[in-house]
Amino acid sequence: MDSGAHQIFNGKEDNYGGIVVNLMEMEPMTAQDFEAKLDVSLKSWKVQGKRGIWIKLSSQLSSLVDSAIKRGFTYHHAENEYVVLTSWISESPSTIPANASHRIGIGAFVLNKSREVLVVQEIGGPFKGTGVWKLPTGLIQEGEDIWTGAVREVEEETGIKTKFVEVLAFRERHQSFFERKSSIFSLCELEASNFEIKKQDSEILDAKWMPIEEYVNQPFNQKNEMFRFMANICLKRSKEKEKYAGFSTVLTKNSAGKESHLYCSIDHADLLNRKCDQASTSLFTTLFHKCFCFT
Amino acid sequence: MDSGAHQIFNGKEDNYGGIVVNLMEMEPMTAQDFEAKLDVSLKSWKVQGKRGIWIKLSSQLSSLVDSAIKRGFTYHHAENEYVVLTSWISESPSTIPANASHRIGIGAFVLNKSREVLVVQEIGGPFKGTGVWKLPTGLIQEGEDIWTGAVREVEEETGIKTKFVEVLAFRERHQSFFERKSSIFSLCELEASNFEIKKQDSEILDAKWMPIEEYVNQPFNQKNEMFRFMANICLKRSKEKEKYAGFSTVLTKNSAGKESHLYCSIDHADLLNRKCDQASTSLFTTLFHKCFCFT
Repeated sequence: MDSGAHQIFNGKEDNYGGIVVNLMEMEPMTAQDFEAKLDVSLKSWKVQGKRGIWIKLSSQLSSLVDSAIKRGFTYHHAENEYVVLTSWISESPSTIPANASHRIGIGAFVLNKSREVLVVQEIGGPFKGTGVWKLPTGLIQEGEDIWTGAVREVEEETGIKTKFVEVLAFRERHQSFFERKSSIFSLCELEASNFEIKKQDSEILDAKWMPIEEYVNQPFNQKNEMFRFMANICLKRSKEKEKYAGFSTVLTKNSAGKESHLYCSIDHADLLNRKCDQASTSLFTTLFHKCFCFT
Repeated sequence: MDSGAHQIFNGKEDNYGGIVVNLMEMEPMTAQDFEAKLDVSLKSWKVQGKRGIWIKLSSQLSSLVDSAIKRGFTYHHAENEYVVLTSWISESPSTIPANASHRIGIGAFVLNKSREVLVVQEIGGPFKGTGVWKLPTGLIQEGEDIWTGAVREVEEETGIKTKFVEVLAFRERHQSFFERKSSIFSLCELEASNFEIKKQDSEILDAKWMPIEEYVNQPFNQKNEMFRFMANICLKRSKEKEKYAGFSTVLTKNSAGKESHLYCSIDHADLLNRKCDQASTSLFTTLFHKCFCFT
């Protein structure tokens, strides 16, 4: 047996009394050596009062998954190139945090100047062959924002370039994929900057501008209450924008300078955005006072 | 060798030219038998023009993970008791859908009649020992709605029973957990129906009602722009509710009768909810016309 096999794994301590063992770069080792080292490590972590143990194994180390499971580890989550297993070794109740639970989808509401809405028919999926004209939809990608994802999907599917306006509404759905995962679908209004459709061939059967009333009145939208409610919000926006208020975006920074977007009511977002635009001028204090202190 | 080893796996066809092999209930089998059967199956699926192959392996079958990986499968996702592996066997570009990408968190804004806000200090986590008073926060559980999750978290942490009012705003954050996953955090207003705090001992160090201005003016909220913006929305609601509009919930059904919630602008939600309340009366047609046709 390799003389190093009985050393313990190099683990990084987390803020919750846990140990994270990242084996993404580890050279292949035999199951026997892995098991011996893991046994010694677990004993040592237990003595130290550690609680949750995390092991991240690259695909190359898939022969070791079975050894970890046999020692009381369970799967926690997996991505293409690795699997993460956890074991709670403390007597206290487990506080191992949950896996990702949701996927975020978007539907894009885009009008042209004749109150026609941009609609598509898809080649595959649940609407295949139904003749239903639907809003362009899609999934938010890893690390992508809702507002940029909506703009991307519309351009990919139809060639129409747009600017994000507001999230008009969103809905939750459970057990919507992989049996027990949930999804949130955000209905986004976008403003088109070109109007000539160039449809994507791989997913989109057809795309066109359709009078909004015709879109809303499709039997499918009338039979499905959720779709009817959403179509109705679009109709309301198409008639008089001020009659329906959604959530607009404000770019903010946390104390470490990392940027992220807040989605909030349009009037308030306007106030906050105005503050940001003016922040570099001497007006800042006055505006800050106006926006935040309401006096 | 078992005479049945060369039969192909029972796979369920999906709507996208894929095969899903669910081995959750399979008796343990040797890696050798699994590999032989998988090889024959893959050959057959390829001839049939199948594209994406999914294999779901229970924890009890962890000894087979390595065999699948060695045959070109990659991890797709995992939950405590199973791992799912996929292989794209077609020449066309892969359209295997993405794994769950987000976790949904909530922050709860609850006022009492003296314009004091319900705040807590946590025992662990990033705010440990900072003295910062924060809104009760938490994660949405598997299959749970944002609005029910917010109500649950507040009662768990503080003993205060509440009714959901609105989502006031939400923010996106990327690489926020497990290195590459994203989160959406919804700021929810709730209405308290009792006011005596009974704090949870396991996670909460202290809980109290705090004058809203004092909450907003904490240095932490002023230094962190995102927190300041959210605190500011709470302040605005505390002064005059009508001055800031969030998203309220409407219960809807899809065409199969499955219920889910739509979150939309409060005025519109009121209209839709009123429609639902009245749907059983003869007023339905009139109201439907009023709500949906805007004529």
